[in-house]
Amino acid sequence: MADSSPSSTTVSRTALLLLRVLTFIFLFIALILIAVAKQTDDNTGEKIKFSDFYTYRYMISTIIIGFVYNLLQMGFSIFTVVSGNRVLSGDGGYLFDFFGDKIISYFLISGSSAGFGLTVELRRGAPSNSFTDKAHASASLLLIGFLFTAMASTFTSFALSKKTNSS
Amino acid sequence: MADSSPSSTTVSRTALLLLRVLTFIFLFIALILIAVAKQTDDNTGEKIKFSDFYTYRYMISTIIIGFVYNLLQMGFSIFTVVSGNRVLSGDGGYLFDFFGDKIISYFLISGSSAGFGLTVELRRGAPSNSFTDKAHASASLLLIGFLFTAMASTFTSFALSKKTNSS
Repeated sequence: MADSSPSSTTVSRTALLLLRVLTFIFLFIALILIAVAKQTDDNTGEKIKFSDFYTYRYMISTIIIGFVYNLLQMGFSIFTVVSGNRVLSGDGGYLFDFFGDKIISYFLISGSSAGFGLTVELRRGAPSNSFTDKAHASASLLLIGFLFTAMASTFTSFALSKKTNSS
Repeated sequence: MADSSPSSTTVSRTALLLLRVLTFIFLFIALILIAVAKQTDDNTGEKIKFSDFYTYRYMISTIIIGFVYNLLQMGFSIFTVVSGNRVLSGDGGYLFDFFGDKIISYFLISGSSAGFGLTVELRRGAPSNSFTDKAHASASLLLIGFLFTAMASTFTSFALSKKTNSS
């Protein structure tokens, strides 16, 4: 198959790295936004922040998991460029990419959905405020991060089939 | 590769059909549970049901999408058994399975997470009641349905690579 030529593999590798860098950036901003989200009630003086909600705590956990995974993958890519060898050789590397992207993309969509689900209902009860705005923005960025990871996951699924094909 | 032998393919096909039937059953019960979830406030007499929350409406949408998809896939399987031919021949069938399972599994986990995220926060505010119990059970069954679909998605990703390999 023409798709298995080295140049095509290099293109996929570059596209994959680009997707991981983009995910990393979006997750980083999402993390900052949800971490700084605070609101003081004008009447009661009560402060609310993300840690008051289990759902936002879960969301921040998924952001951190995705963040660490993408950091690791970018480290692997740099190692590959510098040394010319893959960190995990043979089937191991392809399977790690395949399952890694798949599982992490499920984590990211679950965190984003949980965040959206709660934010939408919080917003209906009260007028829009700084806290829910930041939470909404964070969930949106997490959703974009998920979309990039889902694309990377599609790439690595196809890479698995090309790999089997060329061996 | 020995994995591409017809008997192994038949085993995967059967496992895949079993996963789809299980998903279908779990989604069906999840659908009934969230649809019948109702609660009347003892003090105010106010009734709450799933359609009062955008998040539960989204959850029910994802259940219906998953339900219809699995019904379609089961129909395709029955057609294949009866006629001996796949509905979508060639690459089309494998790509449909691959993207179908991938996208539907993302829908299912997002519906389940959104449902859980809201239910957990609703339960914290008020004592456990019939409505949140049913919503929680529905989100749990949806999560199990997701796990089956995620397994099916892993199968169909590998089927894609075997298919490319044997052609």
